[in-house]
Amino acid sequence: MKKPIWIKHISQLATLASDINGPRSKETMSELGLIEDGSLWLEDGKVLAVGTTIELEKQYALKAHEAEIIDATGHLVTPGLVDPHTHVVYGGSREREFEMRLEGATYMEIMNAGGGIHATTRMTREATEEELFKQTSRRLDSFLQHGVTTVEGKSGYGMNLETEIKQLRMMKRLQETHAIDLVPTFMGAHAVPPEFKGKEDEFVDHIINDMLPVVAEEKLAEFNDVFCEIGVYTPEQSERILEAGKKLGLTPKIHADEIEPYGGAELAAKVGAISAEHLLKASDEGIKAMAEAGTIACLLPATALYLREGAAAGRKMVDEGVAVAISTDCNPGSSPTTSMPLVMNLACISMRLTPAEALTAATYNAACAINRQDLVGSLEVGKQADIVLWNVKNYQELQYLFGVNHVKKVWKKGIQVVG
Amino acid sequence: MKKPIWIKHISQLATLASDINGPRSKETMSELGLIEDGSLWLEDGKVLAVGTTIELEKQYALKAHEAEIIDATGHLVTPGLVDPHTHVVYGGSREREFEMRLEGATYMEIMNAGGGIHATTRMTREATEEELFKQTSRRLDSFLQHGVTTVEGKSGYGMNLETEIKQLRMMKRLQETHAIDLVPTFMGAHAVPPEFKGKEDEFVDHIINDMLPVVAEEKLAEFNDVFCEIGVYTPEQSERILEAGKKLGLTPKIHADEIEPYGGAELAAKVGAISAEHLLKASDEGIKAMAEAGTIACLLPATALYLREGAAAGRKMVDEGVAVAISTDCNPGSSPTTSMPLVMNLACISMRLTPAEALTAATYNAACAINRQDLVGSLEVGKQADIVLWNVKNYQELQYLFGVNHVKKVWKKGIQVVG
Ligand SMILES: [Zn+2]
Ligand SMILES: [Zn+2]
Repeated sequence: MKKPIWIKHISQLATLASDINGPRSKETMSELGLIEDGSLWLEDGKVLAVGTTIELEKQYALKAHEAEIIDATGHLVTPGLVDPHTHVVYGGSREREFEMRLEGATYMEIMNAGGGIHATTRMTREATEEELFKQTSRRLDSFLQHGVTTVEGKSGYGMNLETEIKQLRMMKRLQETHAIDLVPTFMGAHAVPPEFKGKEDEFVDHIINDMLPVVAEEKLAEFNDVFCEIGVYTPEQSERILEAGKKLGLTPKIHADEIEPYGGAELAAKVGAISAEHLLKASDEGIKAMAEAGTIACLLPATALYLREGAAAGRKMVDEGVAVAISTDCNPGSSPTTSMPLVMNLACISMRLTPAEALTAATYNAACAINRQDLVGSLEVGKQADIVLWNVKNYQELQYLFGVNHVKKVWKKGIQVVG
Repeated sequence: MKKPIWIKHISQLATLASDINGPRSKETMSELGLIEDGSLWLEDGKVLAVGTTIELEKQYALKAHEAEIIDATGHLVTPGLVDPHTHVVYGGSREREFEMRLEGATYMEIMNAGGGIHATTRMTREATEEELFKQTSRRLDSFLQHGVTTVEGKSGYGMNLETEIKQLRMMKRLQETHAIDLVPTFMGAHAVPPEFKGKEDEFVDHIINDMLPVVAEEKLAEFNDVFCEIGVYTPEQSERILEAGKKLGLTPKIHADEIEPYGGAELAAKVGAISAEHLLKASDEGIKAMAEAGTIACLLPATALYLREGAAAGRKMVDEGVAVAISTDCNPGSSPTTSMPLVMNLACISMRLTPAEALTAATYNAACAINRQDLVGSLEVGKQADIVLWNVKNYQELQYLFGVNHVKKVWKKGIQVVG
């Protein structure tokens, strides 16, 4: 039997507990369920008690001597962060392409040197199971080190049945072997594979007829995502894929309105997507439709920074009643990072979320965006003991002292994995 | 006697060695002095040998058994980073102001709640020696953890003789007690203190007549900096202060053209400043003048990000022949960060420096900006053994995998201080 753990004298415990069950927007995004001089009792991988230290001293008077005691004086404690949008399973590395671009290489020169998304597709297709396992594990280790205890991951660098399935099975294997929790999303429609250029409808048929049924039958994914954008998939094509997935029990997500306003936000509301991603160019109507439908906006400010795009209108979306989540978008082309702390900072700096809203967006709302809000995203009795102890004294400092990973200790299901 | 240290099998050793003695611009900013399967021999706090592992195996065949061996297979090794522009010595913390601003508070509401630079001045004046020592030490620890082994620090939160001297003496004390090297700059003209509003010339006289002589006599600073900007100090006032400092042996620096083009870059060239800082709005003439005069541009992309300003024209400055250095600008108002790795990333992402140029800007050119190029900034025989071993395999990855602190080990004067 593992010893219980008692984290006590937490200077600021942000439980994220609330009466609101489901995505939070407007005022409720600022309700952090703060406790001063707080305590958490962890046992069997779960949170068994939350309260002030005085309350837990009474409740556990007879059991206190059995527990491992952690004194968290001077520290902020929060739920483990949740990253609801990544492309973390991929082969190869594209740092040389990054350099070429900065040295002034043109798009064609980079393509000719084997760059771009198709380079990652090729390297993911070619990677052995062991290579893919090793390099993805390293990225997941880095996520843990940045306080992230649950990560969504998408396929989409296969763009053929074999490799899409290889990516999804890799997530299953990692879910079984790695401390982090991985939530799988199928994204066959991530780009148009070169062999289907000009024949996008055929590839859509291929996804619907040949890929989705296998994914559903093997239970390899919970979500079904498409890149709905000019030059990639139209709203009509996207809708076909998402509706086909729904019939098989896969919940829709959409990469929407990243480059042009293209009706992606509207489509997300229409098909009942759990979330729409990016939304740099979402229309006012699209934002309203999402607020009404309860579609979560999953915003990716690190990607916007890396691509030197203006950030998404996070402030406006919160004010209009959209529940906002945030994510690294971890991927080798437009956001090669694992730092959710930086993403929280950017949510404040670039999108004008308040420090409290940014924390909700990276915990509870992020959990809602991948349907894990009953397990993680807040520290309440019975939930998973996924916890971060930070080297700052309050949640404001966490966002204010930016660009630094303030993680000191991390517990995953009650087991200390960092610090 | 301390054992010598032999770091061997370094997959990529970026020595930054070059024949160019002094600030590097254009092509020479990309010369990293790369060695594959490299080795470093450290003894008595210095680098005694640099080369390939095969070369050092011959050179140290008889002494190898005496050394502590570090196997750096798979790792990048670089000189310790140098941060040539910080305001690291300050009292208090302003995270609540950060939050208020994001909650929509007006400038006046923040001032009335005791915010802004004058809040830091008040808290620095009120801080006891021990408080100031403790909180500055913590920031310097964080710099080391981010691979920074030399930090410039400015006074300027005193704005009266007593507190300016208190800040500079604190730097002296920290230089003597902390592992990091601190390089002190006097900056009495950091803002206009409220009691001198409208009587700026009187404060300039006060600096020249009462402050500078004490600073020079006690040898409390090597550099003399002013905030030359509309609403702060005019080019004429700035010039008076800088020329007065020169007579006392203090080398000029200038906070120039951050908010408006105001002739700051031109003034820097004219007075022979070692560097001009910020330069977000520097004019084309100013950039040309700096290139001709050999004035280093010290650019602060984290500040630009935090203030949501467009970045400085780093790419253009390099191309026009200006030697570029980069810095955190660590300060409680516009850049509360200690992460030089993020600053390097932003130099690439926002200012379009190449990965190699960004590394030169954070090491050798940064050392030049504080006149330490003979001691640090490159790994050459006889120089200080200030070294970073990174968790990446090459310098491109260091910039490409952004937002993550890839530091694994740090040696300061040959002593391991991180990892
Ligand atoms: Zn994505
Ligand atoms: Zn400054």
